[in-house]
Amino acid sequence: MRYLTAGESHGPQLTTIIEGLPAQLELLAEDINTELARRQGGYGRGRRMQIEKDQVQITSGVRHGKTTGAPVALVVENKDWTHWTKVMGAEPITEDEEKEVKRKLTRPRPGHADLNGAIKYGHRDMRNVLERSSARETTVRVAAGAVAKKILKTFGIEVAGHVLEIGGVRAVETDYQSVQDLKERSEASQVRCLDDQASEQMIKAIDQAKQDGDSIGGVVEVVVEGVPIGLGSHVQYDRKLDAKIAGAIMSINAFKGVEIGLGFEAARLPGSRVHDEIIWSEESGYSRKTNNLGGFEGGMTNGMPLVVKGVMKPIPTLYKPLQSVDIDTKEPFQASIERSDSCAVPAASVVAEAVVAWEVANALLESFGADRVETISENIRRHNEEAKEF
Amino acid sequence: MRYLTAGESHGPQLTTIIEGLPAQLELLAEDINTELARRQGGYGRGRRMQIEKDQVQITSGVRHGKTTGAPVALVVENKDWTHWTKVMGAEPITEDEEKEVKRKLTRPRPGHADLNGAIKYGHRDMRNVLERSSARETTVRVAAGAVAKKILKTFGIEVAGHVLEIGGVRAVETDYQSVQDLKERSEASQVRCLDDQASEQMIKAIDQAKQDGDSIGGVVEVVVEGVPIGLGSHVQYDRKLDAKIAGAIMSINAFKGVEIGLGFEAARLPGSRVHDEIIWSEESGYSRKTNNLGGFEGGMTNGMPLVVKGVMKPIPTLYKPLQSVDIDTKEPFQASIERSDSCAVPAASVVAEAVVAWEVANALLESFGADRVETISENIRRHNEEAKEF
Amino acid sequence: MRYLTAGESHGPQLTTIIEGLPAQLELLAEDINTELARRQGGYGRGRRMQIEKDQVQITSGVRHGKTTGAPVALVVENKDWTHWTKVMGAEPITEDEEKEVKRKLTRPRPGHADLNGAIKYGHRDMRNVLERSSARETTVRVAAGAVAKKILKTFGIEVAGHVLEIGGVRAVETDYQSVQDLKERSEASQVRCLDDQASEQMIKAIDQAKQDGDSIGGVVEVVVEGVPIGLGSHVQYDRKLDAKIAGAIMSINAFKGVEIGLGFEAARLPGSRVHDEIIWSEESGYSRKTNNLGGFEGGMTNGMPLVVKGVMKPIPTLYKPLQSVDIDTKEPFQASIERSDSCAVPAASVVAEAVVAWEVANALLESFGADRVETISENIRRHNEEAKEF
Amino acid sequence: MRYLTAGESHGPQLTTIIEGLPAQLELLAEDINTELARRQGGYGRGRRMQIEKDQVQITSGVRHGKTTGAPVALVVENKDWTHWTKVMGAEPITEDEEKEVKRKLTRPRPGHADLNGAIKYGHRDMRNVLERSSARETTVRVAAGAVAKKILKTFGIEVAGHVLEIGGVRAVETDYQSVQDLKERSEASQVRCLDDQASEQMIKAIDQAKQDGDSIGGVVEVVVEGVPIGLGSHVQYDRKLDAKIAGAIMSINAFKGVEIGLGFEAARLPGSRVHDEIIWSEESGYSRKTNNLGGFEGGMTNGMPLVVKGVMKPIPTLYKPLQSVDIDTKEPFQASIERSDSCAVPAASVVAEAVVAWEVANALLESFGADRVETISENIRRHNEEAKEF
Repeated sequence: MRYLTAGESHGPQLTTIIEGLPAQLELLAEDINTELARRQGGYGRGRRMQIEKDQVQITSGVRHGKTTGAPVALVVENKDWTHWTKVMGAEPITEDEEKEVKRKLTRPRPGHADLNGAIKYGHRDMRNVLERSSARETTVRVAAGAVAKKILKTFGIEVAGHVLEIGGVRAVETDYQSVQDLKERSEASQVRCLDDQASEQMIKAIDQAKQDGDSIGGVVEVVVEGVPIGLGSHVQYDRKLDAKIAGAIMSINAFKGVEIGLGFEAARLPGSRVHDEIIWSEESGYSRKTNNLGGFEGGMTNGMPLVVKGVMKPIPTLYKPLQSVDIDTKEPFQASIERSDSCAVPAASVVAEAVVAWEVANALLESFGADRVETISENIRRHNEEAKEF
Repeated sequence: MRYLTAGESHGPQLTTIIEGLPAQLELLAEDINTELARRQGGYGRGRRMQIEKDQVQITSGVRHGKTTGAPVALVVENKDWTHWTKVMGAEPITEDEEKEVKRKLTRPRPGHADLNGAIKYGHRDMRNVLERSSARETTVRVAAGAVAKKILKTFGIEVAGHVLEIGGVRAVETDYQSVQDLKERSEASQVRCLDDQASEQMIKAIDQAKQDGDSIGGVVEVVVEGVPIGLGSHVQYDRKLDAKIAGAIMSINAFKGVEIGLGFEAARLPGSRVHDEIIWSEESGYSRKTNNLGGFEGGMTNGMPLVVKGVMKPIPTLYKPLQSVDIDTKEPFQASIERSDSCAVPAASVVAEAVVAWEVANALLESFGADRVETISENIRRHNEEAKEF
Repeated sequence: MRYLTAGESHGPQLTTIIEGLPAQLELLAEDINTELARRQGGYGRGRRMQIEKDQVQITSGVRHGKTTGAPVALVVENKDWTHWTKVMGAEPITEDEEKEVKRKLTRPRPGHADLNGAIKYGHRDMRNVLERSSARETTVRVAAGAVAKKILKTFGIEVAGHVLEIGGVRAVETDYQSVQDLKERSEASQVRCLDDQASEQMIKAIDQAKQDGDSIGGVVEVVVEGVPIGLGSHVQYDRKLDAKIAGAIMSINAFKGVEIGLGFEAARLPGSRVHDEIIWSEESGYSRKTNNLGGFEGGMTNGMPLVVKGVMKPIPTLYKPLQSVDIDTKEPFQASIERSDSCAVPAASVVAEAVVAWEVANALLESFGADRVETISENIRRHNEEAKEF
Repeated sequence: MRYLTAGESHGPQLTTIIEGLPAQLELLAEDINTELARRQGGYGRGRRMQIEKDQVQITSGVRHGKTTGAPVALVVENKDWTHWTKVMGAEPITEDEEKEVKRKLTRPRPGHADLNGAIKYGHRDMRNVLERSSARETTVRVAAGAVAKKILKTFGIEVAGHVLEIGGVRAVETDYQSVQDLKERSEASQVRCLDDQASEQMIKAIDQAKQDGDSIGGVVEVVVEGVPIGLGSHVQYDRKLDAKIAGAIMSINAFKGVEIGLGFEAARLPGSRVHDEIIWSEESGYSRKTNNLGGFEGGMTNGMPLVVKGVMKPIPTLYKPLQSVDIDTKEPFQASIERSDSCAVPAASVVAEAVVAWEVANALLESFGADRVETISENIRRHNEEAKEF
């Protein structure tokens, strides 16, 4: 599978084309809309999330509720596009109109792609950069991820995410009984956190940040359960699935770190306490006593749940201004504000689920075929049986 | 550029083919051998590092000291191959020979690819997995990285790595005056650590681990200086250079985490203390007061040094045994030992340099052309000038 | 650059996302609509071409008439979608509705993807195949090609196509004075043929085929002029530009052959009459006396015009029926008709231009950078100068 | 699967790394050597083919006669390397040595990559181009193809090639009873032609060309039998298998055209005589009365044998000189001779088999999994059964 996304934050629409989907997959707009709504939720979001309730249109590749194998194009319209047609239109405008439009940006915001993007692509109006570098793009990444989740679910694989840390507040009680339990409890929390007490403190931290005109980041975790043994491969560096997942997580806007399993904690423990001992039973085949390695050995899944963490930096758009320089006048100034979320970590956990789901689904289809659901299902069934009896 | 590697730990040789190199690049076997030697050094390595001093042969793509633009094939012979011809030979062997060979492995080691690799590829002898999943493969990744470093150096870009943490011992004094200083000081330390006091403690920790029959991991950092603004791109998720680097780091054997700039620390600081304020001067153009984001905004380089951290778990092969299960008898056992390094973190920092160098060099050629050095050089010169005057 | 297309023949719209475009490229909907109109023209098209005048919407990546570097999404709506919402909708339908819809296809047409596509993807209703395998998809390939042409034109490279043969009638007078001349004269012909007399005979052949309830194919040629020396590369098999072009031509619906330069004629001539002798002059540098090799040596452009031919088989949908088998009843039947063009060769020449333009533009950006037009332009200028003075 | 090749015509060795092979494939050096010998045979080859009998070394990925799933590296040494160490060595040489070496080439040969390659990569000594652009490289493409053939054979798919035309002499009697028959008869002919009378005339034409100091080209055909229905896909232009095969054929040195099935003949026949009628029987499922489309519909295999033709231009190195220009003096001269085959068409048919086999094997693994032979085999079996009962 592969997918490309297109679309600007204030353009008419966001689009993605997903290519390489198996046929006969049940897929409804609702499957995707549910995820879009989850992405728009979470404590700490600004005004925009309220005005736009994202809805997907499936414009190809699905007929009467099932994929045909043809590329699936998904469209999410930007509801406020009508106010932006002049500013963001594809058509040329006159010089007079240009002055009138008044949305030219010559003041790069620290922490954004404004300045380096402008230099790379030769833009004196940095709106040409920020409209694309905006996290609005993650809308269609979540849409693509929703399709990947549907694939996984079809084969009994579940993906769930939650928030471990926001603005220095760490969740302590993060045990869960099952992925279902994890899902329900994170869904019930305004900050998608399993620890009620931490949730409260996180909300306070968000309120405080908002009050300070500041922003805060955090850590999210994604868990995938039911993954067959042997996705990815140790044989070539670029086929390791943990590496692909790391790249996917880091590609999310504002993410600055990734961990698999213990992650950086592994630097502080002796090997005898890191590696997961192997056990076996007639009923369930091979298993592990622990899951410190987060479901990966040699870049391949080992049958244990995948556990992936990512860190999101605070949103770089602050009321509390940072110093920058106007690219036209070269005058220093205090950086402007384009939008106003003070914390996007809960939403980012949904995006993280999406990108992890994509990589796992993709690896699954590589191993078990990608033509149609029934065949893939049978291939996985036989593989799991063989793995058990290995 | 792209490269593939091939070769087993006890096979005749390791091979890599590097494709897409510019012509007219000065490249000597020595450039590569220096890096191979660095990889083999470092306190805490076992016997094998002593017996094999890796030497590269350049078997194509370089003529009279310069690349021709044709693919470069690099070969590193395994010195002890003569003892392994029967065990690892490509030719079929008789059943009698098979019994004699006595290197069949049916006992998977926790933390290795042995078991999941065997299930994936259908091997009852797990030697067929571990010979390839072995970190011996990083030899040619370092070789490919040496070529990438030569590209970067040719255009004034320097890559350096050092060790921040081993077995829970963290370096405190990690300031350096220049990349040159960083290089010299890390080279001078047996554990590639800038902090002398920490170095000593790390060595002690390694000795202790060895004595305990245990192993320890650690954290390495790679710094790249002199990178032009705008490598990578914000426009599509899979073109973000920080994401590619994250994938590359995670693809190194035993790595479990990656950070860019502040990394996970960014979850604990307010936005006002994370984002790097923009300054400007006539002489040097745009710059930053700090480098918390590690040289990246929007997935693109911003002109500041790239700062990448990675964490390596303890080597999974221990004298202190872990429980596992024989795949033939299904009897539990205490996991066997194939080799005996107790800490490979210093060497891993060299591998990390290599894979980061590769990604940066690749992004550089994508932006500035890849046909020949002179043209690329001129393109970079003009770009840097325009960036300064932007 | 890369692009994906999506969309069905009777779905709501066709979509393409083009990724990797340089910024600052002037691009108007009109640039694309002109090409879409050319594709819809040509003698021999059936009813549909009249009812739908394709119009593109640019929904991202272009602002105020210029590309921003962000992905460009292009949408072409299917005008008759309103009549097909039930038949082709993404939403599930009830069993009753299913019966009512009455467009289920169980009778595969020879020459189409109906049967093998149905078997591959597990469709009992072959509409799920033919809606995507339809040549309607070439609409957005032409759109993508229009963008590629704009790139080429910006750097002084011209692409033109014409028809050499239809239904056994070959053009004899095919000389042209310049690409401009070629364009004008092919545009003036109803069958895009330079030879007036042949044009007339081709039209008669089309009329005759229509009368017979039959269809006819033909041969088209694409010429690209002004191409810098050295696009593509001899160093690796999959970087040869002629190979990529061959793949692109063969990927057009109903194409069964490709030739570069003399093509199959080269099997009948001695080497001394095939290879293009090299000449040199102070004013224009290196050139060739002839262009038998169609502008390629070693898979790279050599500065002469590219000359590419492709053959299109007759459209497989005939009034004159072919034998087939109903997949439900297994009864033989005479294959049904879905549409009614009797010859699509003139249109196919426009598609061929598009796919060739894409490959050349892509190779151009690989050699000269892809960030922004001004830099690429300067890089090409310097390259051409150096080539002249080589 | 993917593979890269490296190596120069007079360098120490040719190398290929093949990545993505399934495990448990039986693979012997002999399987590859047989194909290398076939490539070196054929009437009309010059001296070099006699002095070098190519032998492959498998340096990784195969153990005790079976693939492990790890990358397979193949090496073919150049036997005369000892005479070329100074001329082609990777080490720098002094200026004095440079003069002594005397193999500098400043005179580009028409029909070769010499001049455009030199301009692209900035070489004043065109040996830096021709050593790589030489058809010697096809040695390892044949080696990679031999591995692909072994995959196909393992699953009951056979690949065979033969010569249809040389220097204007066309084979007339080209019927064969089975692929086995085709193989045996082409193998028995010195020019790999099924028609004995044409074979004789071809040999005469080659002798005549040699006597004239000229060279001749020809047309080859590759047939693949036993291919499952549905390899490749109609859903995206770059997934069409016929397109990939066209690219592969065109990427062979000196090839200028490709045809699938009827190829250009399809421009001269009405649709009613081109498309292959569909029949069905209880015993064998769906089949076709004819195979005009060469086994492809909609870019996918349809169960009929694949039939691919390619045209090779005459070898551009002639005793009969062509005009060219010395790049140093700019003086015109008569182009020099580097080697002396007068016809390489029979050998080229072996290369064509190799590249077609690769594409088909690759498509096969994409559809049916690529982890291990047993699973793939079972997947194909089930697919073929379902296809029959569809």
